[in-house]
Amino acid sequence: MAVDFTSDPAVADLARRTADLVREVVIPVEERCGGVAHTEETRVELQRAAKDAGVFAPHVGRDLGGHGLDMRGRAVVFEEAGYSLLGPLALNIAAPDEGNMHLLEVVATAEQKERYLRPLAAGEVRSCFAMTEPAPGAGSDPSALTTRATKVPGGWRLDGRKWFITGADGASFAICMARTSGEPGDGGGATMFLVDAANPGMKVLRHIETLDESLYGGHIELLFENCVVGDDAVLGEVDEGFKYAQVRLGPARITHCMRWLGLARRAQDIALDRAAEREVFGSRLAELGMVQQMIADNEIDIAAARGLILRACWELDRGERAGQSTSVAKTFSAEAVWRVVDRSLQICGSLGVSGDILLGRFLREVRPFRIYDGPSETHRWSVARRAVRQRSRSAR
Amino acid sequence: MAVDFTSDPAVADLARRTADLVREVVIPVEERCGGVAHTEETRVELQRAAKDAGVFAPHVGRDLGGHGLDMRGRAVVFEEAGYSLLGPLALNIAAPDEGNMHLLEVVATAEQKERYLRPLAAGEVRSCFAMTEPAPGAGSDPSALTTRATKVPGGWRLDGRKWFITGADGASFAICMARTSGEPGDGGGATMFLVDAANPGMKVLRHIETLDESLYGGHIELLFENCVVGDDAVLGEVDEGFKYAQVRLGPARITHCMRWLGLARRAQDIALDRAAEREVFGSRLAELGMVQQMIADNEIDIAAARGLILRACWELDRGERAGQSTSVAKTFSAEAVWRVVDRSLQICGSLGVSGDILLGRFLREVRPFRIYDGPSETHRWSVARRAVRQRSRSAR
Amino acid sequence: MAVDFTSDPAVADLARRTADLVREVVIPVEERCGGVAHTEETRVELQRAAKDAGVFAPHVGRDLGGHGLDMRGRAVVFEEAGYSLLGPLALNIAAPDEGNMHLLEVVATAEQKERYLRPLAAGEVRSCFAMTEPAPGAGSDPSALTTRATKVPGGWRLDGRKWFITGADGASFAICMARTSGEPGDGGGATMFLVDAANPGMKVLRHIETLDESLYGGHIELLFENCVVGDDAVLGEVDEGFKYAQVRLGPARITHCMRWLGLARRAQDIALDRAAEREVFGSRLAELGMVQQMIADNEIDIAAARGLILRACWELDRGERAGQSTSVAKTFSAEAVWRVVDRSLQICGSLGVSGDILLGRFLREVRPFRIYDGPSETHRWSVARRAVRQRSRSAR
Amino acid sequence: MAVDFTSDPAVADLARRTADLVREVVIPVEERCGGVAHTEETRVELQRAAKDAGVFAPHVGRDLGGHGLDMRGRAVVFEEAGYSLLGPLALNIAAPDEGNMHLLEVVATAEQKERYLRPLAAGEVRSCFAMTEPAPGAGSDPSALTTRATKVPGGWRLDGRKWFITGADGASFAICMARTSGEPGDGGGATMFLVDAANPGMKVLRHIETLDESLYGGHIELLFENCVVGDDAVLGEVDEGFKYAQVRLGPARITHCMRWLGLARRAQDIALDRAAEREVFGSRLAELGMVQQMIADNEIDIAAARGLILRACWELDRGERAGQSTSVAKTFSAEAVWRVVDRSLQICGSLGVSGDILLGRFLREVRPFRIYDGPSETHRWSVARRAVRQRSRSAR
Repeated sequence: MAVDFTSDPAVADLARRTADLVREVVIPVEERCGGVAHTEETRVELQRAAKDAGVFAPHVGRDLGGHGLDMRGRAVVFEEAGYSLLGPLALNIAAPDEGNMHLLEVVATAEQKERYLRPLAAGEVRSCFAMTEPAPGAGSDPSALTTRATKVPGGWRLDGRKWFITGADGASFAICMARTSGEPGDGGGATMFLVDAANPGMKVLRHIETLDESLYGGHIELLFENCVVGDDAVLGEVDEGFKYAQVRLGPARITHCMRWLGLARRAQDIALDRAAEREVFGSRLAELGMVQQMIADNEIDIAAARGLILRACWELDRGERAGQSTSVAKTFSAEAVWRVVDRSLQICGSLGVSGDILLGRFLREVRPFRIYDGPSETHRWSVARRAVRQRSRSAR
Repeated sequence: MAVDFTSDPAVADLARRTADLVREVVIPVEERCGGVAHTEETRVELQRAAKDAGVFAPHVGRDLGGHGLDMRGRAVVFEEAGYSLLGPLALNIAAPDEGNMHLLEVVATAEQKERYLRPLAAGEVRSCFAMTEPAPGAGSDPSALTTRATKVPGGWRLDGRKWFITGADGASFAICMARTSGEPGDGGGATMFLVDAANPGMKVLRHIETLDESLYGGHIELLFENCVVGDDAVLGEVDEGFKYAQVRLGPARITHCMRWLGLARRAQDIALDRAAEREVFGSRLAELGMVQQMIADNEIDIAAARGLILRACWELDRGERAGQSTSVAKTFSAEAVWRVVDRSLQICGSLGVSGDILLGRFLREVRPFRIYDGPSETHRWSVARRAVRQRSRSAR
Repeated sequence: MAVDFTSDPAVADLARRTADLVREVVIPVEERCGGVAHTEETRVELQRAAKDAGVFAPHVGRDLGGHGLDMRGRAVVFEEAGYSLLGPLALNIAAPDEGNMHLLEVVATAEQKERYLRPLAAGEVRSCFAMTEPAPGAGSDPSALTTRATKVPGGWRLDGRKWFITGADGASFAICMARTSGEPGDGGGATMFLVDAANPGMKVLRHIETLDESLYGGHIELLFENCVVGDDAVLGEVDEGFKYAQVRLGPARITHCMRWLGLARRAQDIALDRAAEREVFGSRLAELGMVQQMIADNEIDIAAARGLILRACWELDRGERAGQSTSVAKTFSAEAVWRVVDRSLQICGSLGVSGDILLGRFLREVRPFRIYDGPSETHRWSVARRAVRQRSRSAR
Repeated sequence: MAVDFTSDPAVADLARRTADLVREVVIPVEERCGGVAHTEETRVELQRAAKDAGVFAPHVGRDLGGHGLDMRGRAVVFEEAGYSLLGPLALNIAAPDEGNMHLLEVVATAEQKERYLRPLAAGEVRSCFAMTEPAPGAGSDPSALTTRATKVPGGWRLDGRKWFITGADGASFAICMARTSGEPGDGGGATMFLVDAANPGMKVLRHIETLDESLYGGHIELLFENCVVGDDAVLGEVDEGFKYAQVRLGPARITHCMRWLGLARRAQDIALDRAAEREVFGSRLAELGMVQQMIADNEIDIAAARGLILRACWELDRGERAGQSTSVAKTFSAEAVWRVVDRSLQICGSLGVSGDILLGRFLREVRPFRIYDGPSETHRWSVARRAVRQRSRSAR
């Protein structure tokens, strides 16, 4: 027994077929639409191709039509899917649905699974996760949660405002996080509720215009106003929402890394193709030292991010909380992916900022990842605190 | 006599009035249109306000209705104009018109000045500068120029393709750079030609979709095909185009820096306002060390860029070629401005990537500046070569 | 009137003669002793040469045998002196004597000037500045000052421990900062005292071994124990010590930058010489892109630091406190100089880490500058706070 | 089967005992001598302790008294040893002996193993590896090799000059790389020779003074002059020296990373202890955001380096050449370790640059690692070239 980077042959095979699908089917669609595809036809077309290729929903259990990949398996397959902005949509592993499926698999009742998880896993419907609130509500600091759930006979009434709720427009249901005890800033208890899109108390206020645009369904500002749900809408236990948020966020943070790592590789490949072909001052770009430095730094960033992701996955698969390793992997990967896309664009020069290739689009899409799922500063803060605590324990 | 950073009182006054105009008139328009204003009404409205405020076209001579600012004076005033994406348009000092006016003032005949420069300086028309070509033509390496001018009786015939020609759609004339001797890659001679928009041989092929979108008139792909112009269309001397390009590019490179420096200050101010008001984990952002670090690094980058710009301006005003100092200032400023906008956006968190504030737009607008007017790599290459040459001379 | 980087001809001439002296006299001595010269013979020999060249003590008034340079004049001349580790010693402008002369010129009584300043300015004696204390005493946070001065009849009794007191061994007097009111951490008042080396209450405890070794007299741990001085030993007013510390530290911070900037230029020149001569893989180093990038980044760092230093000097010469500009210049310069030396060493490869050239020595000497005179973190903290305050005032 | 970071229990146990030995025995010695111990008594004392603890020479086969660790096992154990500058000496896994043992195990004849490898593995003697030459000889570019081996009856005559030959003074034998065909710069063939210290043709010219000082036996300039050896001194085959150099350098590069990674962890622990205890401005350092950022970046750098090292080890253990992964791991680790030590020193402030703690020493010791075993620039160059080649193959 020793450290081993070999993947299970079944995983390797799945990854290979995913790569083929992305190259042959997904990228042509992506290039046609500039990476932004928000029509149901496109979604259905891509997902059908993934089903035909036998790579659809690889992360959910076999009973739900998936491949039951553990986190390490996801790392390999999601990276291949992420090689195109639309690959995750094709495989039904895009945010936020992917994280919601994971959460529902772990927390939902059998009945809730049938009603919400099964169609979601099949790509029949989409979902959203309604946690983040405009300032001064829940953002980097979840304990600032202001949306309230009040007990009413037979159920709960939700009131509050959420924003940056990805995919909310067109989703068939939302998982809404609301305060069931305590006060904003004090901690206290939160609860997760399953809210159907048809509920008249949940309203799409607006599509928030954002730097990134490719996530299906956009980023939405949502209003919960006198939104009544039944007792059976409670996901898991009352007041345990913050705990479940961790169940969702630890892995979700890392699956983001996997997908964006794939996109970083894509950016590098675009730059490599350009560097191999473009001549300036009598040399191919690929022969110029400063370009080689950018290429090499891309390779290093990609390899380092992959190592950190695999490490965090291994810990999660062992059932650890993996707080430190997921924070480390998320912080490094978000910044590394950003650097890789930025350097790749620089290598391509004016072509890089044009819509003739997708690097400008990629730059826009990856920038927010240094902010969502915990800004780099918040993660660094917790990484440092854990390091200090751990050292003070071990030094004793 | 000693090093002095004091500005002429007239310049300081002009800067103050520019700042007032930007705050009171320009920013409200900019915020309304998200920084992208491509209508003639807006242009005319903004320029009228600038004329009323007595700050219009400050860089051209008094005979043309301007203030005759030297480069150091421009540094101060253009920075204030650049505080808004639309400030330079308002003052008629946006690229590429500003650089074209400078070029025409230095090189054009009296007749050409009357016909092209005077209406341009007055804001009655716009212009473009048609130099850059798609690969493998003139880009970082101007000597790769492929567009040709062939002598015909009484004039010249231009043939070739140009791209990233800012403002070309709607411009009343283009300054087109074409090869009049030698072969691509060999150097040889180029000549500048004044081409009227009405010339049927000059065609707008397409608007290139780009990461940045705020420069008026967009980035255009232009075709010169059997485009015949008279002998009086020659700007300056035949075969001296590369020399005139330097006349234009040295200062133009630095005026870009000035304007973007203003935008960096704006980004910092937006972040400072947010940091002063937003609370997380019980503290204002402005009290958190990692945020303070970003704020301080912004201050340092802004101050350092300003010092380098002023230095280059001083050399240019003394009549020096200032190759080293403009390359140093351009390289540093382009990267510093990018860092400042990126950090400011990070400080603002999810709000920063939303269209509710303009930082995502700023990020898109400043990114290409690390590429155009010479990519950072090309400038570093010439800076290094000059350093080596200068040392080997002085060490002898 | 406009921004001007021209130096006074007298200053330029002084700088030229300083550069000649450094090249012809100082560098040969420096190379012989590896940059570390702690003998009185060397000091006297170098200072005699500087006197002969008419460049000695350029910063003190003409009545003291100097040239009365203002801060901008110092910027130019000190940079030339700093081109060698021993140049400042030769010109009698090394730390801490240079800062002490400045302080005494501003604060001392006529009698104190005759007794302490005149021989110091003449290079007949050396001095030290005893402020920093081991933790938890005065360091980054001066208000933590623990050394106490107690009033006794006819004078004061000093008790406390100081460390990192540069040049204390062999100094003929110390300027000691001691608390005369309040408690550590509370602010309160401090007073500066002139203490003769012969005073039996002041003892050299040890030479602290440090990464840097070239500052004359080393870094000393000093004990003040029942150290009685007369009332005439008070420098300036009682309880005004913190204010005088600022008088000393603002300019002293910037004169450090000037000297180290000279050393950065030297490092770059060593690297340039090597890059021009050394061949690998069939190319001269100077032709390799990654080396060119390091060379260019050195040029940029040097130019940017110089601009920030001149700006701060100009403000100081106008009588401003210049808190922001000196913090900005110090933070940037300390880090830029470090980067320049590090890159230069990298260019020289294994030769660079050998004692055959001085770059390893330079790396050791410049590292502490990111810590002393305020660590980068402390400066960034104050830069950020000032930026926030200034914005909140101007935005109102 | 899946990616797995679990170590073999025997390896984990060895690592634990190594950590104990380092903490209890090695660090006290290291702190006493400031990290620089060049006496045989110290070497023997430390190695005896390692033998007693059962952790000596863990990398060589059991027949030679070792533990037969593969590269992944070494990664874990060597990191623990590297936690002190003297840990590798104690375990007999310091450079260059460790790499030489590896080379001899792979290439030497049975007889050569008995004569050279066995006593080396037992710590009875030391060795050196004589490859690097002063410019313009073999350095970053091995093909520039100028030392020649000329065939003479019954053996070879070696002539040439080597420098930076670590541990040569006091070594009982050298492995000398000499050209046996071709010309410098042309490639051609090199051969490795085993040369006894007693050979009068091999002379220590001088100890090169270097920034780093802790490697036992120093860095030596060696002269081979009319140095005659027998045919049995040839290591492996004639003209195959460049190939064997790769056998040695690939793993040696990575074992360097392992050891320095241990030192980076040590630096971080020193900084964490300081940050937890030192107060400034009323807060513990560990609570200040900018300090937390440095601590977190250290954690990230350490984790990322470890991941890259393990990856390269896994490839090497599978028998791959692992050119890309060892270059990536080496480049990143050398720079990461440097950053970690630099930040840790910064956290400790003036204490950090003093000899009272070891961080200044660590900074000096790790700096050359960005140069030896291939400068970062050379590795980046090969990483980029491989990336371009691999992409052009896969894109076809």
